Amino acid sequence: MTEGNFMVGIAAFDSHITPLNKGLGTFDHPLAPEEMAKLGWNLLREDLSLPTAVLYQEKLLHNLHWMQQFITAYGVKLAPHGKTTMAPKLFDLQLKGGAWGITLATAHQVSVAYQHGVRRVLMANQLVGKQNMAIISRLLEDETFDFYCLVDSAEQVEQLGKFFSAKDQRLQVLIELGVEGGRTGVRDAEQVQSVLTALEAWHEQLVLCGIEVYEGVLKDGASIRSFLQRAVDITRKLMLEKRFGGKRILLSGAGSAWYDVVADVFSKAELGDLVDVVLRPGCYLTHDVGIYREAQQQILARNPIAKQMHSSLQPALQLWAYVQSVPEKDRAIVALGKRDAAFDAGLPIPVLRYRPGTAAPVAAPSGWQLTKMMDQHAYLQIAEGDDIRVGDMIGFDISHPCLTFDKWRCLPMLNAEYDIIDAVQTFF
Amino acid sequence: MTEGNFMVGIAAFDSHITPLNKGLGTFDHPLAPEEMAKLGWNLLREDLSLPTAVLYQEKLLHNLHWMQQFITAYGVKLAPHGKTTMAPKLFDLQLKGGAWGITLATAHQVSVAYQHGVRRVLMANQLVGKQNMAIISRLLEDETFDFYCLVDSAEQVEQLGKFFSAKDQRLQVLIELGVEGGRTGVRDAEQVQSVLTALEAWHEQLVLCGIEVYEGVLKDGASIRSFLQRAVDITRKLMLEKRFGGKRILLSGAGSAWYDVVADVFSKAELGDLVDVVLRPGCYLTHDVGIYREAQQQILARNPIAKQMHSSLQPALQLWAYVQSVPEKDRAIVALGKRDAAFDAGLPIPVLRYRPGTAAPVAAPSGWQLTKMMDQHAYLQIAEGDDIRVGDMIGFDISHPCLTFDKWRCLPMLNAEYDIIDAVQTFF
Repeated sequence: MTEGNFMVGIAAFDSHITPLNKGLGTFDHPLAPEEMAKLGWNLLREDLSLPTAVLYQEKLLHNLHWMQQFITAYGVKLAPHGKTTMAPKLFDLQLKGGAWGITLATAHQVSVAYQHGVRRVLMANQLVGKQNMAIISRLLEDETFDFYCLVDSAEQVEQLGKFFSAKDQRLQVLIELGVEGGRTGVRDAEQVQSVLTALEAWHEQLVLCGIEVYEGVLKDGASIRSFLQRAVDITRKLMLEKRFGGKRILLSGAGSAWYDVVADVFSKAELGDLVDVVLRPGCYLTHDVGIYREAQQQILARNPIAKQMHSSLQPALQLWAYVQSVPEKDRAIVALGKRDAAFDAGLPIPVLRYRPGTAAPVAAPSGWQLTKMMDQHAYLQIAEGDDIRVGDMIGFDISHPCLTFDKWRCLPMLNAEYDIIDAVQTFF
Repeated sequence: MTEGNFMVGIAAFDSHITPLNKGLGTFDHPLAPEEMAKLGWNLLREDLSLPTAVLYQEKLLHNLHWMQQFITAYGVKLAPHGKTTMAPKLFDLQLKGGAWGITLATAHQVSVAYQHGVRRVLMANQLVGKQNMAIISRLLEDETFDFYCLVDSAEQVEQLGKFFSAKDQRLQVLIELGVEGGRTGVRDAEQVQSVLTALEAWHEQLVLCGIEVYEGVLKDGASIRSFLQRAVDITRKLMLEKRFGGKRILLSGAGSAWYDVVADVFSKAELGDLVDVVLRPGCYLTHDVGIYREAQQQILARNPIAKQMHSSLQPALQLWAYVQSVPEKDRAIVALGKRDAAFDAGLPIPVLRYRPGTAAPVAAPSGWQLTKMMDQHAYLQIAEGDDIRVGDMIGFDISHPCLTFDKWRCLPMLNAEYDIIDAVQTFF
């Protein structure tokens, strides 16, 4: 084992892009991401091997600023959920844009972020298992690393306590609240008390630093407000009981669909200056035209600050693929499949069509839609007589960025002229 | 651009495993895959960060030999579909085990296989797009590279003809037959004729080498037999018309569910010594306990050679994850999600349970089942009073290997004692 000489803070990996990634052009040696721009590639000149997943820089930056502006207006903090993209270059963009930290879901993800320079992580999940605890323990050797994870049972507290006691390390934890029929999190006062009692027994190792919820397991605003109010009440109660041991107290919630309601309830709670409200949306950065567009439309309709902002999030992640066959008058087959795109919340939506050699992409006919995806193929429903042929490029917007990002190891970043100006690597 | 000095045949990439892959243990510098065994890791000693996806070597080799024995009994050839695993180490195993070549679905996949030493590829798909053609063109600079791809329209033939004419290269193609309501492939005699006419115009660049079908778009044996007979009839007709230009003629079909019927129909066709029947199953190597177990049970029931073999395929790919919370008496939450496993053909199935520190895994209670998966979590239905707690490890068999493989960049290979004896990298 190599435990002794684990190099915290030293990048023990090669960050070059290999010529073996899909969706790129051809190059003959591993490239530093910043070399990508020098290749002079352009999507419309067919310099990329399709299918490819691309990011549009302007839209991405627009979304970055939009969310930071929203967060600032509420006087709360942003810890974007990094599991969505697992792209350290985007974490960096988010942190430089004003984010308080990065949220992650697993010890592996935390390690990837740390190795790329992230120094504040809220792991919005239970830390479980010997090797996972060992990963975090090694990162905690760096005293500048500010790390939080969740607890929701006495058994889990016990396991953490034993492990970190043996390491003589302190771990910052938040109690996760959950709802009956939901995911993780303590369901009732009895479970809260059980966790508190366990934490007391390990108070030298485990520092209670706040309360966490994931409201996205509920589906309507009233239930969510009630759940969030419960989090506020418990936070206030534990403050009065002096249960918190950190310098500051975190109160955290918010996925990508209800962050406005969380901002509203938590910021109005008047818990005092010691409490930091931390929101964790992840999908806002690329947005989509499916589940999160729908959620965002509701946010724009109900939230006074979002209404005032006179713009919304824009879809910044797009897939491009070739028409490979038009075997029937109302069906084309596109070289794009489940290996390339999320399909759990709606299939990709054809929005642009480009015929190589022409001036610019045009809007795809509104009647076009994917009716089925296989591993490597999609069935595109067209109308008889539509102008479509083999070799045409189709641009697809998507639904559910998370499950699209994890299909790609390197996503070209494009400017508005479709020039490839950068590349974003993922680490799943 | 680097077109001039593209190094065909030279591995212009680093094959080391980085410490940034999920599902592995901790190591401090990139490792050659063969170094993995020296680390002395064992799954049951919690040396891996869960969730992880592991391969069981004995079962994998059993499946490898089973299929090769089946293929040999029919006197046909095997070109396993490599898109399933995209693991060159497994391609190598398949080729050394007797496979004629490797089947792939995209130019990118072909390039990955070539760069790892594969020298015969059937790309069971249309080759479309400038950069994709350029990838193949570069590989064809190596005259030892035996490559075939599909055509199914005059337009596509025209585009290939122009491109490879400009390169002064020859490309071996098969005509793909398809069915009305299906995927790619010519639907009728008129479309066949249209492709043949286009091929004649480019006969110096495009060499017609055979006929290809994917019978898996049909769902019943009778339709499939009729489709396969059509392929035999067209092959015979084109042989009489001397349409084929290669030294040998390929007749290829078979996904992972109907390979026995394809073997039966094609091997009985008596097309003569010039014809090689090539089958392309992909999922047999790891198998599963979902869609492909069901398909295999039907094969064992109907196929005389499979019946004689007195064994079947075994699930060789398993996911392991921790119980992270048991918040309700009939619900546990497992740290395994859509980021880790296929979910399009049934959710993973809990089959083993292991409590760290105990002797060995035991069978999971038959009543346990996943009822839902989110990105990073699964809901496990249990019964009140079941012996389960936070930190327990659950082993899951899966349905649909393809969409599980593409969630992992490195899969530990285990022996029967759960020692990590090797690692298999994927290149998606």
